[in-house]
Amino acid sequence: MSFTLVLGGARSGKSRHAEALVARYPAPWTYIATAEAWDDEMRARIAEHRARRGAEWITLEAPLDLPAILAGAGSRPVLVDCLTLWLTNLMLGERDIAAAAAALGGTLETRTAPTVLVANEVGLGIVPDNALARRFRDAAGRLNQDLAARAASVHFIAAGLPLVLKGEP
Amino acid sequence: MSFTLVLGGARSGKSRHAEALVARYPAPWTYIATAEAWDDEMRARIAEHRARRGAEWITLEAPLDLPAILAGAGSRPVLVDCLTLWLTNLMLGERDIAAAAAALGGTLETRTAPTVLVANEVGLGIVPDNALARRFRDAAGRLNQDLAARAASVHFIAAGLPLVLKGEP
Amino acid sequence: MSFTLVLGGARSGKSRHAEALVARYPAPWTYIATAEAWDDEMRARIAEHRARRGAEWITLEAPLDLPAILAGAGSRPVLVDCLTLWLTNLMLGERDIAAAAAALGGTLETRTAPTVLVANEVGLGIVPDNALARRFRDAAGRLNQDLAARAASVHFIAAGLPLVLKGEP
Repeated sequence: MSFTLVLGGARSGKSRHAEALVARYPAPWTYIATAEAWDDEMRARIAEHRARRGAEWITLEAPLDLPAILAGAGSRPVLVDCLTLWLTNLMLGERDIAAAAAALGGTLETRTAPTVLVANEVGLGIVPDNALARRFRDAAGRLNQDLAARAASVHFIAAGLPLVLKGEP
Repeated sequence: MSFTLVLGGARSGKSRHAEALVARYPAPWTYIATAEAWDDEMRARIAEHRARRGAEWITLEAPLDLPAILAGAGSRPVLVDCLTLWLTNLMLGERDIAAAAAALGGTLETRTAPTVLVANEVGLGIVPDNALARRFRDAAGRLNQDLAARAASVHFIAAGLPLVLKGEP
Repeated sequence: MSFTLVLGGARSGKSRHAEALVARYPAPWTYIATAEAWDDEMRARIAEHRARRGAEWITLEAPLDLPAILAGAGSRPVLVDCLTLWLTNLMLGERDIAAAAAALGGTLETRTAPTVLVANEVGLGIVPDNALARRFRDAAGRLNQDLAARAASVHFIAAGLPLVLKGEP
C-alpha cells in the first residue's frame, strides 16, 4: 500500500495537481469518477474536468462501489476523484460508511500500482446550521484523517500550489 | 509564558495531536474542557473524547471561567480544549469577550508549566449569512491571532498531520 | 510582473501581513481599497483598517475599476485589499468576470513597482446551500489559482502567521 492523498478546498486546483502526479507514470491512466450528474451544475463540472483530461485517460464511474472498481483497475495507475463526493453518495444512499471505508482500506492495502486519491477539506468554515451537514463534515474529517495516516504522501493544495504535509513532493 | 497553540478545522485531529504534545510530560495531566453538554450531539462528542483519554487525565470543566480554572491548575501540564467553544459560551452568555481574553492572557503569562491550547480555524469558508456567525468568526480570528503572536509554538493540523507555523514541532 | 499574493481566511491577519510587506519599500505607499461601505458593518471594518494605516498611505477606491486604478498608481508600491471583495462587486454588478480578470492580468504584467494583492480563501468549508455562493466560491478559487500561478511569491496566512507557498518570505 503506497498511495498519495491530495487534499484541498473547492476550486483549489487539487484535481489538476493529482492528474499531474498520476501522469508521471506511463499511460494509460485510469480515472475513477465518483461524481453523479444529478443536475446541470454537476453535469457541467464533470464535462469540464473530462475535457481537460486527454484520451490517455480511461474513465470509470464509481459513485458507490469505489472499493470494487478500484480493485478492478489492477496494475494501471489510478486517480480517484474524489472521496468526498463518494462519501456524499454513501450518506445520501444510507450506506454503512464505516464498512465502506474499511473496504476501501482493504483494497488500498492490496494495490501496488500508483494510486492518487483526491479529497476535500470541508472543516475550516463556521459550524453548519443543519445537523446533516455537521455529520457529513465529521465523516469527511474522519475519512481524511484515516487515509492520511496510511498514505505514503499527503499534499494540501491552496490556489493550485501544493504543500507537502507528509512524504514526497 | 511558553504555550503551544494547536489550530485546525473540525475533525482535523487537533485534539489528538494536542493530547500527544501534553503526554510528552510526566502524568498526571490536566484536561480543561470548555464544552457544555447542552444536547445529545455534544454529549456524544464529549463522551467520545473522554473515552479516548486514559485515567492519567484529570478533567476540569470551564465553560466560562477558563482563566481562573487554568490558574488553579498550578504546575501540572494542561490541555485546554478548546478556545473556540469557550468563545461560543462567552458570546451566548453575553460576557465581555475583550476582558475575558485579557484575563486569559494574564493567566498564561504567569504559567510556567507546559500548556497546550486547542482552537478552531473557522474563517476559510464562504462569508456566513447571519450577522452573529460573522461576529463570532471575527472574534475567533482575533483571539487566534492574539494567542498565536504570544505562543512559543503554533501548529496547524489538517487530516491529523501537523504543520509548524511557528516554533518547535 | 513580479507581485506577491497574500491568501488567508477572514480575520487571519492577511491585511496586516500585506501592509508589512509593502512597508519594506520607501513611503509613500498606495492602498487600493475595493470595499464599498454599503452598510454599517462594512463601514466599521473599513474605518478600523484605515485607522491602523498611517498618513504615509494614499488610499484609492476601486470597487470595480481595479485594473485602471492600479495602472494609474505608476511606480509607487501598491497594496490591493482585497481581490475577493472586488470579485463580489463584479458579480453583484453583473460585470464580465473573465474580462475583468484578464484586464487585471494585463495591468499586472506592465507593472514593475512592488505590488501586493490580498485575497480570501473561501473554499475550505461545507458546500454552500445557495447556487450564487457556489458560483462565487468557484470564481474566487479560479482567480486565486490564476494569480498564484503568475505571482512571484504566494503567502498563506493563518492566525497572523505566514506560510510560504511559493517564492520569497
